[in-house]
Amino acid sequence: MIQFEWKHTVEWGECDPARIVFYPNIYRWFDKSSLDMMRFHGFGQAEMIEQFGIVGFPLIETHAEYKRPMRWNDEVIVSSCVDSYSGRSFTITHKISKSDLLCVLGYEIRCWGRREGDTGKMKASEMPDEFLRAIG
Amino acid sequence: MIQFEWKHTVEWGECDPARIVFYPNIYRWFDKSSLDMMRFHGFGQAEMIEQFGIVGFPLIETHAEYKRPMRWNDEVIVSSCVDSYSGRSFTITHKISKSDLLCVLGYEIRCWGRREGDTGKMKASEMPDEFLRAIG
Amino acid sequence: MIQFEWKHTVEWGECDPARIVFYPNIYRWFDKSSLDMMRFHGFGQAEMIEQFGIVGFPLIETHAEYKRPMRWNDEVIVSSCVDSYSGRSFTITHKISKSDLLCVLGYEIRCWGRREGDTGKMKASEMPDEFLRAIG
Amino acid sequence: MIQFEWKHTVEWGECDPARIVFYPNIYRWFDKSSLDMMRFHGFGQAEMIEQFGIVGFPLIETHAEYKRPMRWNDEVIVSSCVDSYSGRSFTITHKISKSDLLCVLGYEIRCWGRREGDTGKMKASEMPDEFLRAIG
Repeated sequence: MIQFEWKHTVEWGECDPARIVFYPNIYRWFDKSSLDMMRFHGFGQAEMIEQFGIVGFPLIETHAEYKRPMRWNDEVIVSSCVDSYSGRSFTITHKISKSDLLCVLGYEIRCWGRREGDTGKMKASEMPDEFLRAIG
Repeated sequence: MIQFEWKHTVEWGECDPARIVFYPNIYRWFDKSSLDMMRFHGFGQAEMIEQFGIVGFPLIETHAEYKRPMRWNDEVIVSSCVDSYSGRSFTITHKISKSDLLCVLGYEIRCWGRREGDTGKMKASEMPDEFLRAIG
Repeated sequence: MIQFEWKHTVEWGECDPARIVFYPNIYRWFDKSSLDMMRFHGFGQAEMIEQFGIVGFPLIETHAEYKRPMRWNDEVIVSSCVDSYSGRSFTITHKISKSDLLCVLGYEIRCWGRREGDTGKMKASEMPDEFLRAIG
Repeated sequence: MIQFEWKHTVEWGECDPARIVFYPNIYRWFDKSSLDMMRFHGFGQAEMIEQFGIVGFPLIETHAEYKRPMRWNDEVIVSSCVDSYSGRSFTITHKISKSDLLCVLGYEIRCWGRREGDTGKMKASEMPDEFLRAIG
């Protein structure tokens, strides 16, 4: 899948008293970026819930490394990509940069999540062929 | 209904670069306080959804006046109360203070929300008698 | 001042278990909209802090009325305007609509906030002439 | 350092339309837990900023693995510990469980952050002896 990119101007309310982005907000951007990217590639979470009876793309693991702080009004580029898959999960990598300098490097491991009929527990279900083909 | 009170220590991540609470977080406290208070008085939103088929206690109006800024590590007391009701809505007033000094004065007007069968639109439904009696 | 408008697609993470926007997020949009509008009109908070020694545009009062719920993936338009001023404060009105239907109507009353030298208390300072002229 | 534990009841506003905790909120808990733990052990961020001229304990890396979803009203226990240090950084591990079942396993790598005089860039400074002794 090709890189999915979007711009964001860091908001006042996203920064903490050290005047840099409060880091959980970076994961909010990751989540938004993943879902927007999936939608862009034809796998909108709303549509997939409808079509495949899943509950969404729940997280198995998330990770981030902070290279440079981002400050209020900074214009950053978030760049996301489905990087690989293995078994019943797939990995989305995220890069955030400003003026071509890398600020954050991270990833999310997600699955196509299904709720088990009897227990209600969330389980990773097999990923549809068209998705695997799209990841290529 | 008697006053419902709880303590909160202002978190680093709740403050903005001006080193005071970023105001939308104050409404998060209002929301939490309302739902905890309802639960405390026997009207837990989860149970009411189950028992009355409502979707929750949706908001009609919210308001806040900011008297004094709150800073990171400040210990505040949030004090909430169902103040009145009228027709199909009820008003919860919220006060936030530190060291007996009033910081925020606010309210929420909520209803018992029902989704209309045919349109899916949210509507205020009649409030159950036991709730009206409890408000007194 | 002319109306300031921007589009937003409601994010998954902005919605709650009732599948509608968790209301404190609406105030996050208000805050972002106010600061972006001020910047658009030449009164960027960062620049004003630098130029006038203020700490920002702190809130005196905020208010919102909820007319229609907004759901995940809804495309909304946030429209903001400095509406009036009085003494040392000014009022920004906010409207949020989707497909020309009004969802939220709200306002913020803000001031140009200064920290008192001796006490550190936040005070509303006089608003600069160029701002008053711009509001018209 | 001994384990630092606290209880939390999952809030309505912390959950998303899948009715489970929206994962960036878990990192908010990590951050709160780390800062509360540091304060409990005598290294409150506010005091350390004052005493050592640092800007706080900025993040180098964060990580989380999600074992079980947490739902609204779930009572969870967050348990945090400074696990190790190496060079100019230290690692805090976090576990979140409900009814003795592990829900989340994560860590943060942080440093004692200093702003360089000339460039304003954030740098990891040497950690004070009393902190290293306390980690032991």
